[in-house]
Amino acid sequence: MEQGPLILVTNDDGIFAPGIRTLVQEVKALGRVLVVAPDKPQSAMGHAITIHSFLRLQRTDLMEGIEAWSCTGTPVDCVKLAIYKLLGGKRPDLLVSGINHGANISINVLYSGTMSAAVEGAMEGIPSVGFSLMDHGIEADFSHVRPVVRNVVGNVLKHGMAAGTCLNVNVPKNTGEPLKGIRVCRQAKANWEDEFETRLDPGRKEYYWLKGEFKSEDQGHDTDVYAVNNGFVSIVPTQYDMTAHHAIARLNTWDHAVG
Amino acid sequence: MEQGPLILVTNDDGIFAPGIRTLVQEVKALGRVLVVAPDKPQSAMGHAITIHSFLRLQRTDLMEGIEAWSCTGTPVDCVKLAIYKLLGGKRPDLLVSGINHGANISINVLYSGTMSAAVEGAMEGIPSVGFSLMDHGIEADFSHVRPVVRNVVGNVLKHGMAAGTCLNVNVPKNTGEPLKGIRVCRQAKANWEDEFETRLDPGRKEYYWLKGEFKSEDQGHDTDVYAVNNGFVSIVPTQYDMTAHHAIARLNTWDHAVG
Repeated sequence: MEQGPLILVTNDDGIFAPGIRTLVQEVKALGRVLVVAPDKPQSAMGHAITIHSFLRLQRTDLMEGIEAWSCTGTPVDCVKLAIYKLLGGKRPDLLVSGINHGANISINVLYSGTMSAAVEGAMEGIPSVGFSLMDHGIEADFSHVRPVVRNVVGNVLKHGMAAGTCLNVNVPKNTGEPLKGIRVCRQAKANWEDEFETRLDPGRKEYYWLKGEFKSEDQGHDTDVYAVNNGFVSIVPTQYDMTAHHAIARLNTWDHAVG
Repeated sequence: MEQGPLILVTNDDGIFAPGIRTLVQEVKALGRVLVVAPDKPQSAMGHAITIHSFLRLQRTDLMEGIEAWSCTGTPVDCVKLAIYKLLGGKRPDLLVSGINHGANISINVLYSGTMSAAVEGAMEGIPSVGFSLMDHGIEADFSHVRPVVRNVVGNVLKHGMAAGTCLNVNVPKNTGEPLKGIRVCRQAKANWEDEFETRLDPGRKEYYWLKGEFKSEDQGHDTDVYAVNNGFVSIVPTQYDMTAHHAIARLNTWDHAVG
């Protein structure tokens, strides 16, 4: 459709991941869709951008009637290239990122390329949503995510977004049971207990693989972790103002005399 | 010194950048210093971590009496490797990152590897500070930054940090005039007006270099942009809770019925 809103679609799992295909299928009836997504997996790239090298775009056959480009860079690079190269500075009416193969709850919002693309959209004043499914598998079942995408995108197009914010939407893995609904949440307090697996290469030199375990001790029932662990879709309004406003008064009591 | 606090030092410009050397010189008298920093420039890597490849560490002669390691990964990888590989899970008493060659004011906190390392430190419960100088040059003059480091690190060791926060410290370029002082600030509202410079490779295929112009229209006098543009050091308390708490009530008025 050439009428209706201009919808930019990206992800971090790469343009050939099933998740982005599902997302395109759900939004393509709503307006003009432009897909710009990484040419390879870019999970956990956070808000990285490419400044020490150049970028390329390649026109790609993703789906009939859809303009799609693969990009050599990160998810945030994709957003910037879409706006400043392909659209000549024009802002899309909506940005959707995902559907990520794997959850982006709690502090994972900071590591997530999927969510960083949505945050970049918010910085550009574009109503933006990141969608993630709590299932890492390449053969993950996205069927129950489709109506969630339709509901959230419908709401965003109808109501708009608060300035400086985007949405982080996480959907539980399909268990066969219906979803219990959608809950607006805060980001849970949690952390990664990391570990590095040490291996030896054929030359007996060490190398390390990151492994980690996600631990949430946040007991709140208003968190994204609680929601998805109890059969609900979580929506966390997410902002890029990282100022800890509550900490300013205490810092002003410090002795700041430099000498 | 083997007594005193354990201080982890990292950066994003790479272990051989003058900025990290200055930082190590200023903190080495305070306790035991461990340096783990990227083996190459990792600017603008944000909160990226390496999960699709492995990591290596290489013992490096940085400065006499200092344990220093270069790492093949990102600044956040460096923090994780320091804690979970080199220190066996022990948390340092202080993390300092920088001194970055270039400012990390306003929204640049999200792109910055320097600040993402400090944010990772905060996630691990470590009092953490990122230092940046508004001078990109490899020959930048850091002399006026030294007393700022001593003041801020002294305050952090004395007072500790509010849970879930770290500090983003930006210092104006040395103009010969004395610094006017230190101001506790909020992150300015600003944006990048980006542009991609298109070039042709020898095979006549296009490639793109990101160029951008930083634009702040925030008129507040309480921002980091205002402070550094007026001769002050800015300190922004920075948190990793990205929840837009103020936006939750409005989202709860949406129709969330999925079907």
